[in-house]
Amino acid sequence: MALNTLEQLIQAISRLPGLGKKSSTRISYALLAGDQADAQRLATLIHTLHETIRRCSVCGAYTETDPCPICTDPGRDTSSICVVEQPQDVAALEASREYHGLYHVLGGVIAPIEGIGPDDLAIRSLLSRAKTDVVEEVIIATNPTVEGDTTALYVARQLETVGVTVSRLALGLPVGGDLEYADRLTLARSFRGRTPLK
Amino acid sequence: MALNTLEQLIQAISRLPGLGKKSSTRISYALLAGDQADAQRLATLIHTLHETIRRCSVCGAYTETDPCPICTDPGRDTSSICVVEQPQDVAALEASREYHGLYHVLGGVIAPIEGIGPDDLAIRSLLSRAKTDVVEEVIIATNPTVEGDTTALYVARQLETVGVTVSRLALGLPVGGDLEYADRLTLARSFRGRTPLK
Repeated sequence: MALNTLEQLIQAISRLPGLGKKSSTRISYALLAGDQADAQRLATLIHTLHETIRRCSVCGAYTETDPCPICTDPGRDTSSICVVEQPQDVAALEASREYHGLYHVLGGVIAPIEGIGPDDLAIRSLLSRAKTDVVEEVIIATNPTVEGDTTALYVARQLETVGVTVSRLALGLPVGGDLEYADRLTLARSFRGRTPLK
Repeated sequence: MALNTLEQLIQAISRLPGLGKKSSTRISYALLAGDQADAQRLATLIHTLHETIRRCSVCGAYTETDPCPICTDPGRDTSSICVVEQPQDVAALEASREYHGLYHVLGGVIAPIEGIGPDDLAIRSLLSRAKTDVVEEVIIATNPTVEGDTTALYVARQLETVGVTVSRLALGLPVGGDLEYADRLTLARSFRGRTPLK
C-alpha cells in the first residue's frame, strides 16, 4: 500500500535525531492542526537551509556570510584558536560566554574503525592558521571520549613544531552534578585536576 | 539583533509539541549536516500538508479524499459509530485493529472555561448520522478526563431520543502496566468494571 502524505511526513520526522514514531506522529498532527502559515514558514526554513547556511572557509563553522562573523569580528582575541569536532560545538562554547578567541572546526574525530584518518579532518588548515605570528595558544576542545582524546593528542603532537601553547578543556564534575552519580573516570579526573581553594 | 536562519529554524522547531531548545537545536543541526535532498523532501511534505490533507465531510477524520477511505469502505460495519475527540484518535483506534465500524470526530470536548460549548463540536451532525436506520450502536471514545466524561454524558443524553445503544470505552489497568504504579482512580474503576474469569 502506498503511504499517504501524513504517513510519509511521520516517517520523515521520525528519522530526525531523538524522535520516535510516537513523537513524530504527535508533531505531524500538531502541524496539521496548527496554522497553515506557521507550517509553511517552517517548511521554507528547512527548504532553504542548505542554501543559506554554509561552512566558514576559515574556521569551518556554520555561517551565512563567509568568513563567519566570529572570524571577522575585530573584537575577538586572535591570539587563540579553540579546536572543536563539529560546527555545532561552536554555538555550545559561545553560549558559555567564557571564550573570546577564534575557532577551528575539525569536522570529526580520528576513528580508524569508521575509516576516518587525520587527512579527513581539517588539521592541515589548523596548522597553517597556527603558524601565523599572532596565534599564541591552541585550546583543544574535542569531546572527552576515546576518539576525542586520540584526536586531541594527535593534533597536539602536530602542533609541537609550531611553537604555540596547546591546552585541553578541563575534565571534572559537571556544575550542579551529584558526586553520587558521577562515574568512576570522571571522579578520578576531577581528583587529578583538583584546584587550590583560595 | 536579527535572528539568523538557523536560530529561526531552532525557534520554529521548538514550538512543536514535546520539543525544547536542546532537542530542536539537535534536530536543526542534523538537518543541516544531513542530505539536502532529504531536508527538502521534508520541507515539501510540511509545505503541502494543509493542501493535501483535509477533514472528511462525513466523519471529520483527516483524509486526502473526501469522504475518507473509512467512510467509503464497503467492508466496514456501518451499524456502529465510534465518537472521538480529535482526528488523530481515529489513527490510534485503527491501530488497535479491534474496531471495524465508522468514526465521528467531535473536534474537541465541552470545556466551559475555554469557552467551548456543545455548539462548537460536531454533535448535531452526529445526531443526524445516528438517526439513520442502519446505525445501531454509538461507542463514545472521548478521553477519560473530566472534560471527556462531561462530553460523553452530554452526547449520550442527546442520543437518548434517537434509539441507539450508547456505550463508552472500558476504564481499567493498561495492558503491561503495574498495579503498584496505577493511580487510585484507575484502580477504583478497574474494580468496578471487573470481568468474570471464564
